Amino acid sequence: MLDVCLIGTGGMMPLPDRWLTAFLVRYQGRMALIDCGEGTQIPLRMLGWGFKSLDIICITHYHGDHIAGLPGILLTLGNAGKTEPLTMIGPKGLRRVVQGLRVIAPELPYEIEYIECSDQEIQKFQVGDFHISTCPGDHTLPCVAYTIEINRQPRFQPDRAEQYEIPRPMWKYLQQGEEIIWNGQTIIPSMVLGPPRKGLKVSYCTDTRPTQALASFIQGADLFVCEGMYGDDDKVSKAIEYKHMLFSEAAKLAAEGEVKELWLTHYSPSLTDPEEYIQSAQTYFTNVRIGKDLMKDTLAFDPNEK
Amino acid sequence: MLDVCLIGTGGMMPLPDRWLTAFLVRYQGRMALIDCGEGTQIPLRMLGWGFKSLDIICITHYHGDHIAGLPGILLTLGNAGKTEPLTMIGPKGLRRVVQGLRVIAPELPYEIEYIECSDQEIQKFQVGDFHISTCPGDHTLPCVAYTIEINRQPRFQPDRAEQYEIPRPMWKYLQQGEEIIWNGQTIIPSMVLGPPRKGLKVSYCTDTRPTQALASFIQGADLFVCEGMYGDDDKVSKAIEYKHMLFSEAAKLAAEGEVKELWLTHYSPSLTDPEEYIQSAQTYFTNVRIGKDLMKDTLAFDPNEK
Repeated sequence: MLDVCLIGTGGMMPLPDRWLTAFLVRYQGRMALIDCGEGTQIPLRMLGWGFKSLDIICITHYHGDHIAGLPGILLTLGNAGKTEPLTMIGPKGLRRVVQGLRVIAPELPYEIEYIECSDQEIQKFQVGDFHISTCPGDHTLPCVAYTIEINRQPRFQPDRAEQYEIPRPMWKYLQQGEEIIWNGQTIIPSMVLGPPRKGLKVSYCTDTRPTQALASFIQGADLFVCEGMYGDDDKVSKAIEYKHMLFSEAAKLAAEGEVKELWLTHYSPSLTDPEEYIQSAQTYFTNVRIGKDLMKDTLAFDPNEK
Repeated sequence: MLDVCLIGTGGMMPLPDRWLTAFLVRYQGRMALIDCGEGTQIPLRMLGWGFKSLDIICITHYHGDHIAGLPGILLTLGNAGKTEPLTMIGPKGLRRVVQGLRVIAPELPYEIEYIECSDQEIQKFQVGDFHISTCPGDHTLPCVAYTIEINRQPRFQPDRAEQYEIPRPMWKYLQQGEEIIWNGQTIIPSMVLGPPRKGLKVSYCTDTRPTQALASFIQGADLFVCEGMYGDDDKVSKAIEYKHMLFSEAAKLAAEGEVKELWLTHYSPSLTDPEEYIQSAQTYFTNVRIGKDLMKDTLAFDPNEK
């Protein structure tokens, strides 16, 4: 079960009725946040999932509306009693940018581990149970999209374990993916586990034009969170100039990526009622929701896959 | 007429129902802001006084809850079309801190002028009509209190101008404080102006223990905005340890400074209902208000002083 929450839905600047776009995932009690514009810690507090178990902060790019809330969150994590390391992922320059912002948060009770990802090619990282990939976008400065995947363990097959006469107290090691030696024979997990099972995949993509690479990157995602800076198709030249997406472009990308569900976000401050334009997305992709601040869901592994 | 607004009333971190402490003054359409923690631009937007005519940002000290909102505000000022210079005032290190934060706001369409004030002695600066003084406080790092004064022009005396036979079209120069030469004689403004008149004075003081210097610094202020981190007098040891003030200490300071009115602010996140403790302030100073986010007033020159 992967809990997801769209923390905010705004672009450019935080508004009285709209937090800046950020996205939080939680699996087995640990959390990863993507983007943290000014004020993001406020809806995080409203959400009530706590701060201390936030292990990862991913940044798409270094425009203020995606990172200006970082020093505040870093301080709040410290106040919440965090002592375990925080992993930060972002395009080249991450360390320099974070160190600049940390002029007002120089001392923290935990370490920060920096991962600077490529703005040229897809990369993969693992932090705890989170399998994180980055894919370069096409924005006015280096910007990456994120995919977070949770692997699903193959099912343990008790009948096979019994064939090998492995005593029950040792099953757990195999279930955890460890080898054991029993009766002089090395037993590896695949000998007692079923076939691979599909995990969960969420992709997050803001501040970019749609690209072929992104369509592949998000392929088959259970949830695709994508910017919809402008609702009105007439704004296409603005979208091209500022390197953003229309609702309809996000929907076409979702369709091409064959994702299960699309949530739109990162609305222009001038877009006061995004619901008005849902039709222009639905024309290309039916299962679309107009993102709202603190919109939540829980993604479950496929119950039909035994 | 000086418009004042207490933008927020929280300390430490922005909360879902409380913005961080900041204070805005407006005189003749121009504005000065003191402090800007994370999110301050949001209540500023709610207030509706605009951004473009913000000329001055004063920072008391470099703890995140007083400055983390700066990059966002700097970007928003640019988006609002500001091109005139912004003056920033703060303790030593201002330029270094702002330049650190500007890693995410490197290009702005206006200049920033930096004034680094002393953390050892009172200093005075003038920016436009704002006469700004700084006074060192006693906090865990260098921190200053601010006083903003608006001078009131002495009244122009038409009968005296007539004595000198100055033609009416030239009166305005004298009213504006300029010398003129008329009939071969130099006329200086004081020859045609009445006695000095009392201006307006507001003082703002957070993140400090009460000190004798501060009591003098705020002397006779029309409005004194002061931190009340803790309401309960039992928290005195905490106030001493963290270098903050109790409501009662702020009230004693207001009484000693013979100010006209006290607004409390900068409440600890644990202080959910500051109204509960108003009595502990009123014991020492009657004209006290529990500050609330976006609490406004307009201060007028004394109508009895002709």
